[in-house]
Amino acid sequence: METKLKIGSYSFAAEPFHCDFKHRLFLGHLCNALLNAADYHSSERGYGMSYLNTMHKTWVLSRLAIKVKRLPKAKEQFVVNTWIDDVMRMFTSRNFTVDVNEDEIVSCKTVWAMIDTTTRRPVNIAEVNNGLIVNYIDKEKPCSASIPDRISLGIDASMQRQLQMEYSDADVNGHVNSVKLIDHVLDLFDISWHRQHAIDEFDIFYKTESHPGDVLSFYKEQTADNEWNVRVERPTDKGFVEVCRCRIVARRE
Amino acid sequence: METKLKIGSYSFAAEPFHCDFKHRLFLGHLCNALLNAADYHSSERGYGMSYLNTMHKTWVLSRLAIKVKRLPKAKEQFVVNTWIDDVMRMFTSRNFTVDVNEDEIVSCKTVWAMIDTTTRRPVNIAEVNNGLIVNYIDKEKPCSASIPDRISLGIDASMQRQLQMEYSDADVNGHVNSVKLIDHVLDLFDISWHRQHAIDEFDIFYKTESHPGDVLSFYKEQTADNEWNVRVERPTDKGFVEVCRCRIVARRE
Repeated sequence: METKLKIGSYSFAAEPFHCDFKHRLFLGHLCNALLNAADYHSSERGYGMSYLNTMHKTWVLSRLAIKVKRLPKAKEQFVVNTWIDDVMRMFTSRNFTVDVNEDEIVSCKTVWAMIDTTTRRPVNIAEVNNGLIVNYIDKEKPCSASIPDRISLGIDASMQRQLQMEYSDADVNGHVNSVKLIDHVLDLFDISWHRQHAIDEFDIFYKTESHPGDVLSFYKEQTADNEWNVRVERPTDKGFVEVCRCRIVARRE
Repeated sequence: METKLKIGSYSFAAEPFHCDFKHRLFLGHLCNALLNAADYHSSERGYGMSYLNTMHKTWVLSRLAIKVKRLPKAKEQFVVNTWIDDVMRMFTSRNFTVDVNEDEIVSCKTVWAMIDTTTRRPVNIAEVNNGLIVNYIDKEKPCSASIPDRISLGIDASMQRQLQMEYSDADVNGHVNSVKLIDHVLDLFDISWHRQHAIDEFDIFYKTESHPGDVLSFYKEQTADNEWNVRVERPTDKGFVEVCRCRIVARRE
């Protein structure tokens, strides 16, 4: 086994065409960088998507919680650090920090399941590569993001938008891309809201997969002065199932 | 004046989360890389967006024609070469090639106007930086893409979709991002079309700017066995104006 550091660090640039009208990297593009870093890190350690696909397995992102001090500015270079901080039977916990000039500006915590791509059922992570993944666990490095126990929406949540998923929403597996869902959720807030707010925290729980052609319904509820919850549903033969739910905490600026 | 090569070359990677279900870089993401390369190239030569903004000027993309041999595959490294091949009074012509291991896989031709950001009127490019831009013109390097004289849509073009532009559609200037329009146009073709086709050529003429909140109407017409034209409109006080029109040539695969 090639010896690898537990923490992987990858450099990215906040490219101008990935930045919003405040000249800051879109949160979705930042999450893309996090997921790409996760794929590089796991590939280098024998647990990458491409390798797993050869044995009909893949990683599925289950939960993501991000805490933002500030977002990278246009043209700024940033480093994504990522490491595994826990491996349970069916789930792996992966952390991230984002640094600009060694100053931490973002932290993020994620939970991933490994599934069998034919049965779509979770598989025991210890059965892959003789469970070598546990050698990479780092419980020491701190991560200030935390995943909430639950995200609750009451009966006051109102439907804001229905949107058909298309070709550009699908990822390499043909499912709606986890990050495109984040983009669509943030689009429920109009441009004047974005002008007046900056996102402090964004949490998302992924529930079921959706596909191009699905018409998603987006429900939103304001739960505190600076907090909103969102639920996304898709139709099935028997009614609706939840695709994801989110919690957004923003500050005035 | 610092001496710079006429042709700038910039490396990018086809990150897995920027690839479609065929594991190829989305055309929109490729165009993002082209536009980022254009900004790096022009910034290094004293004509970048950031510098122009200080004098209330900016570049506006007017036409883009791309010719695709193949798209970069997931995780593939690619190099974008870009250079100015002509400067007219109000317009600049910029070319691109995309290489993988020195094999050219994509070529692209663009036309840009420089405008005054307060009046929104074109400005004479020669008046900026003493017209030094002409020193960078390279008419030698070949570029196989070509911009069509016109893109015509007949009365048979039918409305395919109406879509409200949102926060994630806006660029650093607050206008709908040129590349997001390309994504939305390619979304007019459903997933089974994308499964059976690969894009050979994509041409887009940008006509007027649009903004978050605008509801765009997308009209599509098949003009030959392997060719489709698209027109995008937005409402105004006096009816509709054209936002852009496109021509798509695809091959079966």
